Amino acid sequence: MRLADSFRSERFGAVRIHELQRVIELDSGAQADAGRPALEAGSRIVPPDALRAVETQLVIVVPCMNESRTVVEGVLSGIPHDCLLVLVSNSDRHPVDRYEIEAQTVEQFCRLAGRPAITVHQRDPGLAAAFKAAGMEELIDDAGLVRAGKGEAMLIGMALAAMTGRRYVGYVDADNYVPGAVHEYCKAYAAGLFLAGSPYSMVRISWHSKPKLRDGRLFFSRRGRSSEVTNEWLNRFLAEYSGFGTEVIATGNAGEHAMSLDLGLKLRLAGGFAVEPFEYVDLFEQFGGVLDSAHPDVMNSSVPVVQIETRNPHFHDNKGEEHVQGMRMQALNVIYHSPVTLPALRAAIAEFLVAQGALLPGQEPPRERIYPPVGELDLDLLFDGLDAEALSFRRFDGRAAAGLPPAPPIDRGTIPRAAA
Amino acid sequence: MRLADSFRSERFGAVRIHELQRVIELDSGAQADAGRPALEAGSRIVPPDALRAVETQLVIVVPCMNESRTVVEGVLSGIPHDCLLVLVSNSDRHPVDRYEIEAQTVEQFCRLAGRPAITVHQRDPGLAAAFKAAGMEELIDDAGLVRAGKGEAMLIGMALAAMTGRRYVGYVDADNYVPGAVHEYCKAYAAGLFLAGSPYSMVRISWHSKPKLRDGRLFFSRRGRSSEVTNEWLNRFLAEYSGFGTEVIATGNAGEHAMSLDLGLKLRLAGGFAVEPFEYVDLFEQFGGVLDSAHPDVMNSSVPVVQIETRNPHFHDNKGEEHVQGMRMQALNVIYHSPVTLPALRAAIAEFLVAQGALLPGQEPPRERIYPPVGELDLDLLFDGLDAEALSFRRFDGRAAAGLPPAPPIDRGTIPRAAA
Ligand SMILES: Nc1nc2c(ncn2[C@@H]2O[C@H](COP(=O)(O)OP(=O)(O)O)[C@@H](O)[C@H]2O)c(=O)[nH]1
Ligand SMILES: Nc1nc2c(ncn2[C@@H]2O[C@H](COP(=O)(O)OP(=O)(O)O)[C@@H](O)[C@H]2O)c(=O)[nH]1
Ligand SMILES: [Mg+2]
Ligand SMILES: [Mg+2]
Repeated sequence: MRLADSFRSERFGAVRIHELQRVIELDSGAQADAGRPALEAGSRIVPPDALRAVETQLVIVVPCMNESRTVVEGVLSGIPHDCLLVLVSNSDRHPVDRYEIEAQTVEQFCRLAGRPAITVHQRDPGLAAAFKAAGMEELIDDAGLVRAGKGEAMLIGMALAAMTGRRYVGYVDADNYVPGAVHEYCKAYAAGLFLAGSPYSMVRISWHSKPKLRDGRLFFSRRGRSSEVTNEWLNRFLAEYSGFGTEVIATGNAGEHAMSLDLGLKLRLAGGFAVEPFEYVDLFEQFGGVLDSAHPDVMNSSVPVVQIETRNPHFHDNKGEEHVQGMRMQALNVIYHSPVTLPALRAAIAEFLVAQGALLPGQEPPRERIYPPVGELDLDLLFDGLDAEALSFRRFDGRAAAGLPPAPPIDRGTIPRAAA
Repeated sequence: MRLADSFRSERFGAVRIHELQRVIELDSGAQADAGRPALEAGSRIVPPDALRAVETQLVIVVPCMNESRTVVEGVLSGIPHDCLLVLVSNSDRHPVDRYEIEAQTVEQFCRLAGRPAITVHQRDPGLAAAFKAAGMEELIDDAGLVRAGKGEAMLIGMALAAMTGRRYVGYVDADNYVPGAVHEYCKAYAAGLFLAGSPYSMVRISWHSKPKLRDGRLFFSRRGRSSEVTNEWLNRFLAEYSGFGTEVIATGNAGEHAMSLDLGLKLRLAGGFAVEPFEYVDLFEQFGGVLDSAHPDVMNSSVPVVQIETRNPHFHDNKGEEHVQGMRMQALNVIYHSPVTLPALRAAIAEFLVAQGALLPGQEPPRERIYPPVGELDLDLLFDGLDAEALSFRRFDGRAAAGLPPAPPIDRGTIPRAAA
């Protein structure tokens, strides 16, 4: 893969946000196989071997809620073979058990492709019991089950990823109509994680365009309805500190993103659709140098955020206007309530929300749910709980089915626990 | 890339048409790097090294007529680095010189990506003069220029491909909205050409689905409006000989396809949109064993046609109903007029066309224009003509611009001329 160089970046404490980098070639050939990126006239190659080395350490988590079987199968086909698949589902189980259909789809794909995968259902009582035992009561709702929500699905996925002993986790939505786009996202994760060159790194995707229906014609829109607002306020957050306006953040709502588990296990994830913008907020809180950090090791290193603009259009299921409006609010809520957000910005957010009719004058925006870091979980207890009680917890080994040596078992011991 | 196995095929003389094979994984990892395809539980891997080996011998021809600059740039970004780019344009040159814009787009891309490319305009008087000198008067119209038409563009592209000394040529339309789909097409060409295992081989793509607008919603249709008819009549052609109904041909109208130049230089191409279905017809005529073949070497070998169903939706510019109707007719015209089409089928085609209102009873369908094989051209004269007279003939060398050793020059000597 060949990326345009990123010449500029903004620093906030240990966090270094790199300006958006375009993908120039999806496949940059076998050149520069020596293992280090080649620099050529404003662009940078990440050779196949370097991509592969990251992919063999990369877990791809697919959050899924009632998506069509064909679309999910297409998504799986786009995920590079060496990545480990984890599907976290919150699909209906009645009147039809859609999770069972998804699990079958994954199993069949794994058998054909000779690769392993893990699936679990978010509302499995056994999963709730396991998380409780492992030390995360916060995730459980009044019905005694893990809460619904995309952030919650991502948290489950991160915990499973940590149990496998791999080094990286990335997310790909299940509702993507273009397998080639999924493929590009995963390659971009690998390229970005390789280039980031820090044990604590994150890669976030900005899609090239989003096809939309307008007057019965297709129109390729460059901006998402919700991301423009989120990005603007995150950039104003930075500008409020530096005194300089910036547009560096282009991926505030990026559903497609990846990170090293060394970083991911330290992050606090937010619930629902607040999860993606809150990752930026939590980076600022924990590694921005404004508050004391619980992780001096990270503060002495750096936390690069690589942003990549992919070539493919982002072409997914249209979930409607209300949904988008909700996402926008959740992003602003988490910025508003962060202890590192400066008072002037907080006031401006409240004013904006009032002007939008989303808030009554004098009211405070609601707080989103924020979970403790996954690194505080006892992964041994989590695994034992899943293994013993979670009926929806499936591990497929298409490698064994294909007569290959079986996939390495889930390894519960290799990820160091973060200090509580 | 991992493909489902093809278990069945239909033979017609030396031509062996393989049943459609699905793509299972876009990237099947680094396994089976020994260079031969690995067979696993109903599927076949073509490892990266094998793909790469074909790509370094593959010329990708992009026929282009008045497509938008952004879309063309996306198409370029999806073509693997090791393939050589050839753009053949028939875009308007007045009031705006769209060809000049395209050539700039290609040049800029080549500079960024450090790769070479060739572009030419179909209606350049110098191109016409060169083809005349090289021995193909048939291509020239009353205005003294090379005729307009997609088949004509493909013929020009094949001649240029032959001049480069590479072994394979493949075609990718310039109006594809999904760079990841272009990428998959090229990988599928490489995988299919590798698996075909004959010096005379062809790979044809059937896309997974085609997004269409219906009642303001997107609908992923599995069948093309024109391909269903074309495929049905090509299959009836085979059935008429064998006595057995078949559905083996699924790629009669495939715009996306590739072949070895050893085969391509012997084929006669048809003009306009008759070009794709006529490739099948000409295979049947030249290598079907019904008529004497001018190529006993090919008859002693075999001519595999590999058909691959890609994962990505085919998402291109919508050129309207009239265009599709025209394509359908052209396909039937070439089947009707082939000397190897049996009388019963010919009668059925005429009947169908009359029932469709496309033909008056008793009339004959029109004949499409059929050109002599590109292998009969004198490539030295063609090159000299282009070099001396075709002002639109451009060779970009982004490698040199990037400070790399320059691309090998166009090599006019290595492709053996077919017997005239
Ligand atoms: N497991 C799980 N997946 C979810 C949940 N909510 C949404 N998803 C999935 O997360 C992905 C993104 O959600 P979507 O509603 O499409 O949001 P958008 O693409 O950001 O507009 C899709 O694959 C959904 O199926 C949830 O509560 N649990
Ligand atoms: N050079 C050249 N390209 C053409 C011509 N006609 C069509 N094309 C290109 O060939 C490709 C396929 O044509 P299109 O009209 O989209 O046909 P369809 O996709 O089969 O419906 C597109 O990239 C067109 O720009 C022509 O006369 N000359
Ligand atoms: Mg979505
Ligand atoms: Mg088209």
